[in-house]
Amino acid sequence: METHIAFTKSVIVVPALALPSHEVGACVEFAGLVRETEHDRALAGLHYEAYEPMATRELARIFNELNAVHPCAAVVFIHRLGWVPVGEASLFVRVLSAHRGEALRFLATAIDRMKADVPIWKSVAARG
Amino acid sequence: METHIAFTKSVIVVPALALPSHEVGACVEFAGLVRETEHDRALAGLHYEAYEPMATRELARIFNELNAVHPCAAVVFIHRLGWVPVGEASLFVRVLSAHRGEALRFLATAIDRMKADVPIWKSVAARG
Repeated sequence: METHIAFTKSVIVVPALALPSHEVGACVEFAGLVRETEHDRALAGLHYEAYEPMATRELARIFNELNAVHPCAAVVFIHRLGWVPVGEASLFVRVLSAHRGEALRFLATAIDRMKADVPIWKSVAARG
Repeated sequence: METHIAFTKSVIVVPALALPSHEVGACVEFAGLVRETEHDRALAGLHYEAYEPMATRELARIFNELNAVHPCAAVVFIHRLGWVPVGEASLFVRVLSAHRGEALRFLATAIDRMKADVPIWKSVAARG
């Protein structure tokens, strides 16, 4: 499985789709956007921080584990750091696989595992 | 829920992301690509046909049913018809929701239901 993991302080630019083979039948993408309301507070945005070396290592480990269960052809993971305004993406994940089942299960589990285990934090900033 | 259903004989152009509100936290997209190998045959592509009025009506009905169970903000569905070469998308689906759980469940079930119940057919064309 091709694995691409990146962190950026800029607006996430979705990379052009590159198919590793003609046996890829499913491309699933997820963008996590900052919402205006969180825990009944109106936000202007969120601030994200990561311990990048450990986060990259953990993500690679998680992706490898998931690939053994839900074999996929490629995963692209991009997380924005710093200030992310409401309506913009803090996270982009793309998974390519032969069939949609693996890609959807890989994606859903990868995000759950990221939220549980990977050192990426957000802090709330009140509007105004 | 905003619903957009379209069929096209051209290459699918992914529409620009339009957020219906600042409460959208998840954008999930699926592209179904034509694979080179199907049932051990090498293909150059697939030919898709639909009975468009009924397919549109059925899709709208399915999306409304799913929205009652997995409430979402918007769904965009684009299916290509006619000849689709290997490596190109026959289907694009985008689902927007507050949280990723609903969007992922909506997407997965919508595609399953489409394949089972919506009058869209593919025919295989052998390479060469």
